[in-house]
Amino acid sequence: MELAQYLEQKKATIDAALLELVSSTGAGHGGACGDALERLAESMRYTLALDGKRLRPILTLAAAEALGVDEQTVLPAACAMEAIHVFSLIQDDMPALDNDDLRRGKPSNHKVFGEAIALLASDALLNAAYRWVSESCRRAALEAPNALDCLDLVTDAIGEAGLIGGQAIDLLTEKRSDLLEADLHTIHAMKTGALIALSLEVGARLGRAAPETLARFREYGRLIGLAFQVVDDILDNTESTEVLGKPAGSDARRERGTYYSLLGEAGARARANELVARAKETVALLGAHAERFHALADFIVDRHF
Amino acid sequence: MELAQYLEQKKATIDAALLELVSSTGAGHGGACGDALERLAESMRYTLALDGKRLRPILTLAAAEALGVDEQTVLPAACAMEAIHVFSLIQDDMPALDNDDLRRGKPSNHKVFGEAIALLASDALLNAAYRWVSESCRRAALEAPNALDCLDLVTDAIGEAGLIGGQAIDLLTEKRSDLLEADLHTIHAMKTGALIALSLEVGARLGRAAPETLARFREYGRLIGLAFQVVDDILDNTESTEVLGKPAGSDARRERGTYYSLLGEAGARARANELVARAKETVALLGAHAERFHALADFIVDRHF
Repeated sequence: MELAQYLEQKKATIDAALLELVSSTGAGHGGACGDALERLAESMRYTLALDGKRLRPILTLAAAEALGVDEQTVLPAACAMEAIHVFSLIQDDMPALDNDDLRRGKPSNHKVFGEAIALLASDALLNAAYRWVSESCRRAALEAPNALDCLDLVTDAIGEAGLIGGQAIDLLTEKRSDLLEADLHTIHAMKTGALIALSLEVGARLGRAAPETLARFREYGRLIGLAFQVVDDILDNTESTEVLGKPAGSDARRERGTYYSLLGEAGARARANELVARAKETVALLGAHAERFHALADFIVDRHF
Repeated sequence: MELAQYLEQKKATIDAALLELVSSTGAGHGGACGDALERLAESMRYTLALDGKRLRPILTLAAAEALGVDEQTVLPAACAMEAIHVFSLIQDDMPALDNDDLRRGKPSNHKVFGEAIALLASDALLNAAYRWVSESCRRAALEAPNALDCLDLVTDAIGEAGLIGGQAIDLLTEKRSDLLEADLHTIHAMKTGALIALSLEVGARLGRAAPETLARFREYGRLIGLAFQVVDDILDNTESTEVLGKPAGSDARRERGTYYSLLGEAGARARANELVARAKETVALLGAHAERFHALADFIVDRHF
């Protein structure tokens, strides 16, 4: 199957599963309480439903598929990866953080629902992600140590050593013009790479992958995660707000060091290509499945939004 | 052992364990990145370290003790209950929510660390709670379904049907003078009761309690959770800011319906006593351990802050 068709098919599967998972939460209350819970669920669905690439959950499905795991088994965990991503998008956009009014071409969550409900919706998505990974562990009938390992990986990828830590560094190093490429690497490995690597590793763990295979998926995830961020930095400087669906040039306005500002467009493009080439080598030994992961890596550097 | 001595001893155990759990996260990075991660960890420790009663983790320890579980086994899960509580305190105080400048007599987290870091610290505490419950499940050697049940309970108590949902209702029903006691009950059962019930049930589950015992602990938790909130409403109207360590009279300023405004002081006091009496009946069958839970229930209505 061509990658474009594969992506389209998997995205449709994930969109449907996400809608089902979030509509089945909350409610059961009438009156003022029921109205408030419905509003919270609307806020959760709003940013989840914005037309995304669903890259992270697709990586989870692809990794699980490579290990022969049934799609229904892995689907909740795949949706959890998107929920964690959307948790971070909602909070990123808030006034206390990046203060962005647009997300994927639509008003940010807090512009529609207010800051308080946007915050609670983001919390609820992070929280629900644990339930969904747990559900996949049940469906895969993982024994206790493996199931707990899987959930602990989620904690690590989100926490101080992952997404949240990367966000903290990103915020506290704004306007520092002395950032080295090594610092940028640390920020993005944590802020973007950790969740992408997690998405692959959770899929592989549901398929009881051997430690060697897990390590390869993790490394592949880290490399394409970094490539993804390098491309993001390029696009922020070269594409319009209309194409991006979020304000273009926002990094420059924040005087934040980026791969683009450090390496220039040609240098950043070369770095992205190099990372993708290394990512492809990492999965070369996956045999028949390597081709899919090669195409996914190419997709990351070739995208325009 | 007298309750006062028991509370003091357990609080010391929890304070030490919390400090160890949070100081062992993050770091390992130097320079700008290391500084930022250290700041995030400081923000997490700041609100965790404010002198609290540690009621929730003490309930977890007490429930586990009643079932013969070793203290070292249950300690991480007990700390998780406090981390979840502190996550909600940090967010409650933020300008988008209650906008309180004081917490336990000290400046709120966001007044010290800024809103962005306060938010990330709260996220990191919620996230870490999962790791700590998972650690206790490992130490208790729970088999997969029981371990996953335990983690799913955490998700339910925090999520749209628990703490976060209760917070959403509380926010969206502010200034509604038509709230019934049933609405208040729903709000507080979710916002306060769910986490208190969880604290007991997690302790009991680590001890592989029978379903009947779990149900009793859950019901006891719900009842003392509601009593706790009724007493909170009374104290907010009758004690000074100095004694409370947070601005007194804040409910009245928000025109928020409370047990105090609905029932009056005498009525609210009677309701708290009635809830505690029912809670005591619920655990009467716990035999030798009932006495401790009776004393804990009395402590909740007799407290002054």
